[in-house]
Amino acid sequence: MRTDKEALADRLRQIVSSEAAEQFLDELNGLRAEDVAEAIGRLELADAVSILQALDSDLAAYVLIELPTETARAVINELPDATIAHYLDILPMDDAMDLREELDPDRFESLLNVIPQEDAQEIRRLMSYPDGSAGQILTEDFVEVGPDATMAEVIGVIRSGLEEEYETVNYIYVLSADRHLLGVLTLRRVLRAHPDAPAREVMNANPMSVPVEMAEEEVARILARYGFTAIPVLDHRGRIVGIITADDAQSVLQDAQTEDVLKLGGVSGDAEAYPSLSIWQLVKRRTPWLLILFVAEFFTGSVLRHYLGSAADDDPNSTLSIIAKLQLFIPLLIGAGGNSGSQVTTTITRALALGEVRSRDWWLVMRREFAVALIIGGILGLFGFARAVLPGLGWSQPLPLSITVGIALPCIIVWAAVVGSMLPIGAKRLGIDPAVMSAPFISTFVDATGLIIFFEVARRVLAAYGLVI
Amino acid sequence: MRTDKEALADRLRQIVSSEAAEQFLDELNGLRAEDVAEAIGRLELADAVSILQALDSDLAAYVLIELPTETARAVINELPDATIAHYLDILPMDDAMDLREELDPDRFESLLNVIPQEDAQEIRRLMSYPDGSAGQILTEDFVEVGPDATMAEVIGVIRSGLEEEYETVNYIYVLSADRHLLGVLTLRRVLRAHPDAPAREVMNANPMSVPVEMAEEEVARILARYGFTAIPVLDHRGRIVGIITADDAQSVLQDAQTEDVLKLGGVSGDAEAYPSLSIWQLVKRRTPWLLILFVAEFFTGSVLRHYLGSAADDDPNSTLSIIAKLQLFIPLLIGAGGNSGSQVTTTITRALALGEVRSRDWWLVMRREFAVALIIGGILGLFGFARAVLPGLGWSQPLPLSITVGIALPCIIVWAAVVGSMLPIGAKRLGIDPAVMSAPFISTFVDATGLIIFFEVARRVLAAYGLVI
Repeated sequence: MRTDKEALADRLRQIVSSEAAEQFLDELNGLRAEDVAEAIGRLELADAVSILQALDSDLAAYVLIELPTETARAVINELPDATIAHYLDILPMDDAMDLREELDPDRFESLLNVIPQEDAQEIRRLMSYPDGSAGQILTEDFVEVGPDATMAEVIGVIRSGLEEEYETVNYIYVLSADRHLLGVLTLRRVLRAHPDAPAREVMNANPMSVPVEMAEEEVARILARYGFTAIPVLDHRGRIVGIITADDAQSVLQDAQTEDVLKLGGVSGDAEAYPSLSIWQLVKRRTPWLLILFVAEFFTGSVLRHYLGSAADDDPNSTLSIIAKLQLFIPLLIGAGGNSGSQVTTTITRALALGEVRSRDWWLVMRREFAVALIIGGILGLFGFARAVLPGLGWSQPLPLSITVGIALPCIIVWAAVVGSMLPIGAKRLGIDPAVMSAPFISTFVDATGLIIFFEVARRVLAAYGLVI
Repeated sequence: MRTDKEALADRLRQIVSSEAAEQFLDELNGLRAEDVAEAIGRLELADAVSILQALDSDLAAYVLIELPTETARAVINELPDATIAHYLDILPMDDAMDLREELDPDRFESLLNVIPQEDAQEIRRLMSYPDGSAGQILTEDFVEVGPDATMAEVIGVIRSGLEEEYETVNYIYVLSADRHLLGVLTLRRVLRAHPDAPAREVMNANPMSVPVEMAEEEVARILARYGFTAIPVLDHRGRIVGIITADDAQSVLQDAQTEDVLKLGGVSGDAEAYPSLSIWQLVKRRTPWLLILFVAEFFTGSVLRHYLGSAADDDPNSTLSIIAKLQLFIPLLIGAGGNSGSQVTTTITRALALGEVRSRDWWLVMRREFAVALIIGGILGLFGFARAVLPGLGWSQPLPLSITVGIALPCIIVWAAVVGSMLPIGAKRLGIDPAVMSAPFISTFVDATGLIIFFEVARRVLAAYGLVI
């Protein structure tokens, strides 16, 4: 079921270029939005846009919100206002809110003037809640009844509603005239109670609720903890403003977990599917922390220099002195290798766990990681060289030593990227849990092998200057 | 809502020792099992057992399965067979299966002979599926109808069922006479269709399902991906064996995530709440990987020795030679510090994210981590000393150097534990996301500060032997 995404993407590519697309489009319209989105995410932008426009709008709108943020943003830029307004109209409000993140604010504002007034008002209300709060993921599409409604009337409300009017009909919320939450009915209980019984006698009068300002992650944890499928959201005066459903909470939780895992591995940024990130975005997510850690590791070098300074400084050209000087850079080099290896292995292990990457994608991953590591390695290499050679800011080391550092750093970082990406994928292929290729394991492995790279680079560079170690 | 767990635990402690417990028990019986379990988990074993036995059985059974595994196991050992059999009877079968993990196999087998025959048979069926497969978390309590049943009849089935007979009534499964899955009805659609319409005309005839052998984690990911609240499970001949509900899938996913995060941080073991783990269990989860990495780091030392060997070996008692020898141990020492720091920070950050630990628990965490680090540090210190001093296996280093290594290791590991636990908690208290105190950050911080510890220990030990660096 989850194995033929690449095949689907291939067929989509053929479709775009052929005229005999009708039959396949029918088939496509029978698929789930999540699956179509995954396949479309693998296409070129122009192809993705034309497939999306060929789909039924009902499906296309949901496919759009399932696309990774970056892809969705690019697709939306290509779509006419009328199409997006139509999608906004189709989607439940909490999903429509998701599209906001992918739209230029001015364009979103002008779209709000095109869609039905009532929808626009609801979106504006949701937008007024703080970012990342419960208010931003709630839906106002819940079933509500008064305390005196009978069970027969409750069923009548559900029967007469439009097909997609309510996000869930499993909970029915009992409200007072001024919209205070009095209690909750489950549909199961409604069906079982006497048809003439009033809601106030059947309802659970003490339901759990959350305030609208609560962080969305916290709401999601409460839903998960108690196994609820929905929870009502109240304003500060106890009036209901909407409900949050478990599927939205689940997405919040998964993104939060991904961000936590990546942060623990020293990678910053929002939860985004690995394949949808460009080389530059990967570089951007990893370089800040690496640079901070790199600068912090200068301090380790300074500690070494403090304790070993005398040995390194007397008799500048003796073998012993050169070796002592080389050693000052060891923590810097193996630190950079270990940290970038941790980043890569954390990223890839998470992508494997979420099914964003499969073991047969290894060559794709390798090429990407190689390119990313070359860029990051180049940046750190320049910094390392400057640190070593500069007289004021740096340590005024001899040029051969500084060149050694500048060359060894990119080599070690590329090596760390290869090890850090291929070991989890290899483990997965062998049927071993990729997470056992832990960050500490990669760091330790890169420590030893990185040192070999460092000394071999040093031997060659120093030999070119007539120095021997 | 989530802030008064310790207060609840305190009140529970008072209750156990007082006679005026009646009123509080009533109050307790009105709480949710998850909350009672969290409070009970903080009590002494004897107190936990007496509270549990005082509760209504309906609540107590659910509290028991919400307890952390180790606590539940201890509590169950104290409970009489009759009580456990009664709990097994109350619980849905998929939850009853959870209890099996906490019971001695012989005892579980004998309990199966005490509970109703039908339940025992269902448990035996579930037990026959592979560990960690969909079969182990499914429930057989779903609503089923034939293809010719009318909507009015479907509602009749739901109405006439016992209150807790079905895990969910939101999906109704349409089965052929030989129990093949023909389609699925949502309760919403049942209510909206004509009362005389047969199931075969209303149902979704192409529902998603999973095979019974599929790994439970994979099933959970499918439920999360599509936002389903339940999914049917089929045997290899396409007959339905049960359904898996989203709340069970959610628990599977959360545990899997916790295990993945911890593994990435180099900590082995099942997902268990941090506070429920004893000092020894924490030691057991961390020592294996640390030892493996420690041994691997010997190799780093060997690489250094290979390239720097000449400098370290000639003129054994000169300052330069001693310093060169000290340096051979640097990767070993900062590696051990970095790795144990990563373990601690990963563990604590995850516990903070799951709400198992709060920032005001810092002193408890500090004491535990201090004790754990002392034990682990002692073990690694012994290994490090042996590695340094032993002539055959080791490097035949002078005694003062070996003693330095043996003392510096525990000091660095204790320091790493304090830093690795207090930085995330401090961040949380300051309102910063604890995950920014990433494993690479802790490693780098411990690199520099660990070196200072190493050299300061070295200076003192060597001075005692009349050597100066």
